[in-house]
Amino acid sequence: MAGDSKYPLVPGHEIVGLVTEVGSSVKGFKVGDHAGVGTYVDSCGECEYCNDFVEVHCSKGSILTFNGLDSDGTVTKGGYSSYIIVKERYCYRIPDGYPLAMAAPLLCAGITVYTPMMRHKMNQPDKSLGVIGLGGLGHMAVKFGKAFGLNVTVFSTSESKKEAALKLLGADKFVISSDKKQMESMTNSLDFIIDTASGDHPFDPYLSLLKVGGVLVLVGFPSEVRLHPGSLSYGSRTIAGSLTGGTKETQAMLEFCAANKVYPEIELINIQYINEALERLVKRDVKYRFVIDIQNSLK
Amino acid sequence: MAGDSKYPLVPGHEIVGLVTEVGSSVKGFKVGDHAGVGTYVDSCGECEYCNDFVEVHCSKGSILTFNGLDSDGTVTKGGYSSYIIVKERYCYRIPDGYPLAMAAPLLCAGITVYTPMMRHKMNQPDKSLGVIGLGGLGHMAVKFGKAFGLNVTVFSTSESKKEAALKLLGADKFVISSDKKQMESMTNSLDFIIDTASGDHPFDPYLSLLKVGGVLVLVGFPSEVRLHPGSLSYGSRTIAGSLTGGTKETQAMLEFCAANKVYPEIELINIQYINEALERLVKRDVKYRFVIDIQNSLK
Repeated sequence: MAGDSKYPLVPGHEIVGLVTEVGSSVKGFKVGDHAGVGTYVDSCGECEYCNDFVEVHCSKGSILTFNGLDSDGTVTKGGYSSYIIVKERYCYRIPDGYPLAMAAPLLCAGITVYTPMMRHKMNQPDKSLGVIGLGGLGHMAVKFGKAFGLNVTVFSTSESKKEAALKLLGADKFVISSDKKQMESMTNSLDFIIDTASGDHPFDPYLSLLKVGGVLVLVGFPSEVRLHPGSLSYGSRTIAGSLTGGTKETQAMLEFCAANKVYPEIELINIQYINEALERLVKRDVKYRFVIDIQNSLK
Repeated sequence: MAGDSKYPLVPGHEIVGLVTEVGSSVKGFKVGDHAGVGTYVDSCGECEYCNDFVEVHCSKGSILTFNGLDSDGTVTKGGYSSYIIVKERYCYRIPDGYPLAMAAPLLCAGITVYTPMMRHKMNQPDKSLGVIGLGGLGHMAVKFGKAFGLNVTVFSTSESKKEAALKLLGADKFVISSDKKQMESMTNSLDFIIDTASGDHPFDPYLSLLKVGGVLVLVGFPSEVRLHPGSLSYGSRTIAGSLTGGTKETQAMLEFCAANKVYPEIELINIQYINEALERLVKRDVKYRFVIDIQNSLK
């Protein structure tokens, strides 16, 4: 993944934990509650986007949870600490019984795919969804797809992901994207595609798999998007981008995950393992998100 | 404009005229009625798209009005003839009092912009629309935009189009697209953009003018679409393609145009003028559609 100055990438430094203290105006949390914090900890609170609870698009810019410039001029440090103080609006209630560590990736990978899935009405049972790439975002797209009752096809460059896609994640179909014949057999067959691939890849072959009116949502960050205009015009197709979601939708997603038993696949590690974890991330050897147990690491 | 074998361009050879004879099963037309024929004269009539009256996306391919291969193996000749026999389904009723010659461009340029405007809900008064390019399609986008109550900005490379955009067509604002300062002053200000430019042009500068959730519809045919993924992700923006519309929507558009006095700007010519007209087309010297008066030309 590569960002640039105009479009910086938001690293996922989302947090879950227990509430140890609440301010006098806090209404939704009490000491001992399970709470989460997503990729941003503040926003102006008064622009049209904040008023619509899509604070991620705040006109003045939301303040990132990690490495963001806070309103007091300090740099935010995310969850790499024993405690964090966050305004109530940017905290989420983790539903009772939901495994705490598993809730963490929902607050970045989860909401990043859930938001466009809801916006583009992908929660219609029996529609078909293609998922390009099977990393942290892709595996959540498969899980949400199945929870919505969709027929899910995973596209990957690597045969090694087939078993996990079909058996662990429950996808209906697995396609090697370099296999032209397999790809062409799916022409005009999908209602939706979620593209989580951050490596450069062609778009025309995927767009041709969409039905008339089909939508491809881009959540990965290739270096560019390049396509033939006919891939959109013929078939009246759409390509749309998305960031993470707003606070209202994030809370709704958490409740959806609890009600439908949607759990990210995680590997819980101690902070002492971080260098090895980073090396494995570079090699894409993670299924599908590392979660650092800060509290136990610091004991 | 340039097409290729995978995505052939559909030339606009749409027709209007008087009904001179009707078959025994025809119910919607009688001799003497004003009728029109769009860019296609047949389709399978039984696929999901035909059943939805979006025959332009027929699974088996619709049959083009001009230079298409008809079901009897002959090549269609469009309106370059004294008479044409067309199935009722692919004929449109031109509303009473609507100037016949002006109805012709509606059946290609008109419906090509009307269809995506309706699909992407651009008929919401007080929203803002940008129109890139001011040819046959662009001038209709401006007219529909004003009829829908939108605030319309025209983007053009040529200052010479300013007066027509503002005075003749009623646009609210005119922007020279090469003027970086003017462009940047409009950042995040538009709900929608209709891009009718067929020459190659950058997409990122236009996408950055869209508000969060904004939609750019591509109806032109540049040689490629190339953009930064952040232009879509940041702001959750969308780029969508579109062809012409189905029979049901085409009829609805004709009625909308009659009710709201939306008239294309045309130049009526005789067939004898065709070579000069073609030369002028190449020089983009047409405001905004030539309509050939076949009947009077052949007298």
